[in-house]
Amino acid sequence: MSKLNCLSPVPPDIVVSQSVKLLPIHELAKKVGLLPDEYELHGDRRGKIKLDAYERRKDKRDGKYVLVTGINPTPLGEGKTTTTVGLTQSLGAHFNKKVFACLRCPSRGPTFGIKGGAAGGGYSQVIPMDVFNLDLPDIDAVALANNLCSAAIDTRMFHEATQSDSALFRRLCPGNDFSKSMLKRLEKLGIFKKNPSDLTKDEISQFARLDIDPDTIQWKRAVDVNDRFLREVIVGVSSTEKGLQRTTGFDIAVASEVMVVLALATSLQDLRERMGKIVIGRNKKSLPVTTEDLGVAGAMSVLTKEVLKPNLMQTLEHTPVLIHAGPFANIAHGNSSIIADKIALKLVGEDGYVVTEAGFGADCGGEKFFNIKCRNSGLVPNCCVIVATVRALKVHAGLPLKECKKKNVEAVKAGCGNLVQHIENIKKFGVPVVVCINKFDTDAKEEVDVIIEKAMEGGAYAAVPSEHFAKGGEGAKELSKAVMKACETKSNFKFLYDLDLPIKRKIEIIAKEIYRADKVEYSEKTSSDIENFEKNGFGKLPICIAKTQYSFSHDPKLLGTPKGFTLPIREVRASIGAGFIFPICGKISTMPGLPTRPAYYDVDIDEKGEIVGLF
Amino acid sequence: MSKLNCLSPVPPDIVVSQSVKLLPIHELAKKVGLLPDEYELHGDRRGKIKLDAYERRKDKRDGKYVLVTGINPTPLGEGKTTTTVGLTQSLGAHFNKKVFACLRCPSRGPTFGIKGGAAGGGYSQVIPMDVFNLDLPDIDAVALANNLCSAAIDTRMFHEATQSDSALFRRLCPGNDFSKSMLKRLEKLGIFKKNPSDLTKDEISQFARLDIDPDTIQWKRAVDVNDRFLREVIVGVSSTEKGLQRTTGFDIAVASEVMVVLALATSLQDLRERMGKIVIGRNKKSLPVTTEDLGVAGAMSVLTKEVLKPNLMQTLEHTPVLIHAGPFANIAHGNSSIIADKIALKLVGEDGYVVTEAGFGADCGGEKFFNIKCRNSGLVPNCCVIVATVRALKVHAGLPLKECKKKNVEAVKAGCGNLVQHIENIKKFGVPVVVCINKFDTDAKEEVDVIIEKAMEGGAYAAVPSEHFAKGGEGAKELSKAVMKACETKSNFKFLYDLDLPIKRKIEIIAKEIYRADKVEYSEKTSSDIENFEKNGFGKLPICIAKTQYSFSHDPKLLGTPKGFTLPIREVRASIGAGFIFPICGKISTMPGLPTRPAYYDVDIDEKGEIVGLF
Repeated sequence: MSKLNCLSPVPPDIVVSQSVKLLPIHELAKKVGLLPDEYELHGDRRGKIKLDAYERRKDKRDGKYVLVTGINPTPLGEGKTTTTVGLTQSLGAHFNKKVFACLRCPSRGPTFGIKGGAAGGGYSQVIPMDVFNLDLPDIDAVALANNLCSAAIDTRMFHEATQSDSALFRRLCPGNDFSKSMLKRLEKLGIFKKNPSDLTKDEISQFARLDIDPDTIQWKRAVDVNDRFLREVIVGVSSTEKGLQRTTGFDIAVASEVMVVLALATSLQDLRERMGKIVIGRNKKSLPVTTEDLGVAGAMSVLTKEVLKPNLMQTLEHTPVLIHAGPFANIAHGNSSIIADKIALKLVGEDGYVVTEAGFGADCGGEKFFNIKCRNSGLVPNCCVIVATVRALKVHAGLPLKECKKKNVEAVKAGCGNLVQHIENIKKFGVPVVVCINKFDTDAKEEVDVIIEKAMEGGAYAAVPSEHFAKGGEGAKELSKAVMKACETKSNFKFLYDLDLPIKRKIEIIAKEIYRADKVEYSEKTSSDIENFEKNGFGKLPICIAKTQYSFSHDPKLLGTPKGFTLPIREVRASIGAGFIFPICGKISTMPGLPTRPAYYDVDIDEKGEIVGLF
Repeated sequence: MSKLNCLSPVPPDIVVSQSVKLLPIHELAKKVGLLPDEYELHGDRRGKIKLDAYERRKDKRDGKYVLVTGINPTPLGEGKTTTTVGLTQSLGAHFNKKVFACLRCPSRGPTFGIKGGAAGGGYSQVIPMDVFNLDLPDIDAVALANNLCSAAIDTRMFHEATQSDSALFRRLCPGNDFSKSMLKRLEKLGIFKKNPSDLTKDEISQFARLDIDPDTIQWKRAVDVNDRFLREVIVGVSSTEKGLQRTTGFDIAVASEVMVVLALATSLQDLRERMGKIVIGRNKKSLPVTTEDLGVAGAMSVLTKEVLKPNLMQTLEHTPVLIHAGPFANIAHGNSSIIADKIALKLVGEDGYVVTEAGFGADCGGEKFFNIKCRNSGLVPNCCVIVATVRALKVHAGLPLKECKKKNVEAVKAGCGNLVQHIENIKKFGVPVVVCINKFDTDAKEEVDVIIEKAMEGGAYAAVPSEHFAKGGEGAKELSKAVMKACETKSNFKFLYDLDLPIKRKIEIIAKEIYRADKVEYSEKTSSDIENFEKNGFGKLPICIAKTQYSFSHDPKLLGTPKGFTLPIREVRASIGAGFIFPICGKISTMPGLPTRPAYYDVDIDEKGEIVGLF
């Protein structure tokens, strides 16, 4: 293992990233135990693992499964990714453990917008950062599959509006045969005929007309760009579309349901099945219309087939990282893929560790990791790391951002309430909690000590400061020890709610147990939508609440540990392909904007042909 | 070399494609003389060649450079790609020559729409066809760079509309420094200051306000899907955009100017330079606004950097193919990349051959190959193959499609006028013409003979029937011999027009010499736009006429050799990054639609996880 030569002060991320020589991907693959036919190279700096690598090891025992999550995020950043990467650098390069980090693919939206890249930071990074931030193919494939479906929806409505039943039917079955998806649709309609000429006039009409109600279409188009002018658009304005214009919108591609399908699929066949279950809207009888009805689910699956293989990259200390899928953490579950975690757990084997990260705070990505991701995967987590910082806890105590660098033990103590509530929550899943205090230069010893004290009082298994940002894996040795020890405790993992409960009851459990709301409030429309879901057979799905990341509540301004609030469900939707119901609290933007000087202003190619300005 | 086992009748393309075992890409790379550090693997079935491969061989002599083009296309398909592939299979596997085929990346639009895939056909194909049709990254990167620019345009107009000069300036330069692109903008404005605090109030306003006139914006968004409802859209409808909505549209991604920049770039630095020259519209003083002004050209270049490396694949007979870029042949020049051709010419060396294909007929892609692509690359073609079929020539004689399979020597003879006019045209460039009669089972010997006779009378160097569809390279041996012989003649290559001529004169030369129009007609707006281009220094660019592929004229119904017509220029635009002026004749669609039963209905994943239904 290479030793990092850590400079102080820590240089900019791109400088650190470029200071380390990459391990050739085939050597990395060999090191993690992959056979030559179990992975693909994609250029010199990235690989992909084939799904066979799992199949061949499926009878092997899994490694320890560690989740990294955090307190409610603040504008200062808490360093979840940096911790995930630093912890694996430490376990792999300093304790000689087999280990993988599993992360989400970053969207190019924030990379070129406000936030910059997402490869970790300081001496805990995935390298090279340009490949990580720019060249992963997952999101492009998702956007394309998403947009093929969009074109299918509008074009189908156009063809139905402009053709008679018989013309439509003749053109749908020009070779006088049904495609596989057409047979599925017929079956759904209760028509068990295999030959187009056997259909009655009424059956032809039922089959050929999806009769989509345009007002119910929740499917949007997608781009991986922060393009605020696409939030709401009117399509079909050209005269060639004969006046069939309609108001719709674009989401950033990572908010697409296709991304969730990719993240939750447990195999290629499971992906195909989920892809066909996606409900794009309802017909005029209020029945769900699916991608299978549109005949486009097979093509959508084919377009995402190649990206079902997780991307293999490495950290600054040459430990392996799988980057795969990247769903939003509000309207979706905010976790990297099940497939990546499953492959990694087999590759590290029973003495190894897989560290996977959940987006947003432990109340969002964390809760969804347990209740949605683990439920789909059947995997059992052994330990949960909650990342906190001295500065962020001061924010939760109500201190203005600019005062957070100043020593203030009382404020830290007050802010610990947020952390403790997350510890209590995670323990409800039966998983031991290790608190990682991601250290900054400006932190005072007493500030760190008070967090340790409060965390232990709050039920943490351990609480340790960690300096992986400044020192790489070397700086995370205490954290590693705590995590390894926590993983030895007997796991008592359980879900927070039973799927058989009514939708409203499941929402209430999350709201009360995790967010600590007093009660939940539903608009009339929301209640009737929930009834409709249950009537259509979607009642047994898990719940994925879309709310702000900044607070336990629905209100981003309520920091710390808000109490006595009512959680208002503004709207409720269903991602049937993904397999969850998502109630929406407050205003959730699925298409960010760009600031006046976006990050792209500084990104360029220099005289030597190197990329500059990424951060 | 493997011998193809050709079945008769020829099975469906996908069956043929899957019947041949792939040569591992590293073996293919070795075979073509690439060193291990000169290429990248991208999965098991595709590679990418690094630009270094050219740099290291730049003093070597080029191979022979062969263009494949065709008569005016008909709905029957003439087989240009099949011929390009078949010819290289023949030269490589049957004459033991070093050879490359160079093709454009196929858009997923037609793959899932009406046309199906584009990997050749029968026993002359690029394999595997699923990788060729679905998994090349070029178009995704182009779309993303295109759409980042779109977001930059609308967001900039929004910020300018909602902020004062000083607020705008402060936010553009928050660190009190200028980015590289900002310095370029200042230079263009004649302000030679390096420090934001040195700017006067007036200079601040000039710098910070691009003042884009929304009515002049020609930049559209892009998706690689046939989505007719995006032809014209209203963006900015959400209340968050404060009423700044505007009518615009989406093109299919291959119609993006970014695609042309990728295709015409001769190096990474040239790509960067062209990317910054793209004119997205004009300001309120009618001066051009560029991507450099928007500060987005560096990021657009970074997003396309990786796809500047051509994709390496193989034919059914394991000869190498470079697939790279894929611009439209109407509003753009319709040829694959300069970089791919240049690398291939060095790799084959002076005894080898590079066969490159131009889109549409010889009057479109062919003319643009010589006047635009060769002018940019400095490469000199040695031979031009014009592909014709018995059936297509009958169409040009006015026969209805369904009668084209019936023997009719007179009709073929009458249709030969179209072919002969293309031969005459190409000879104006000083390049010898080999006519390839792409043979079908239904062709009668007399029909083929009359084409040979007419072609030779018309000035062809040779005219030969070819059976590469049915027999692979073995079937194209006569064609190979003719091409090799033609390449030995002394090249007398010249351009059709001089760049220093006025724009209208250049248009006239193409219209009269190639299309055989009597005259050219301009609307008043067109004439004033041309004046404006010349005033802005864009007068010395080559011309890229956008017109129908089906006729020498602007009218798709005028088959054969239309005479005595006036070419109407409806509109004229400029692609300054690409480096050409494009007059538009007739209605050109840059966003195709989907039929009632699109090709995607049949595309799926089968029980074994294989892709089915691609054709």
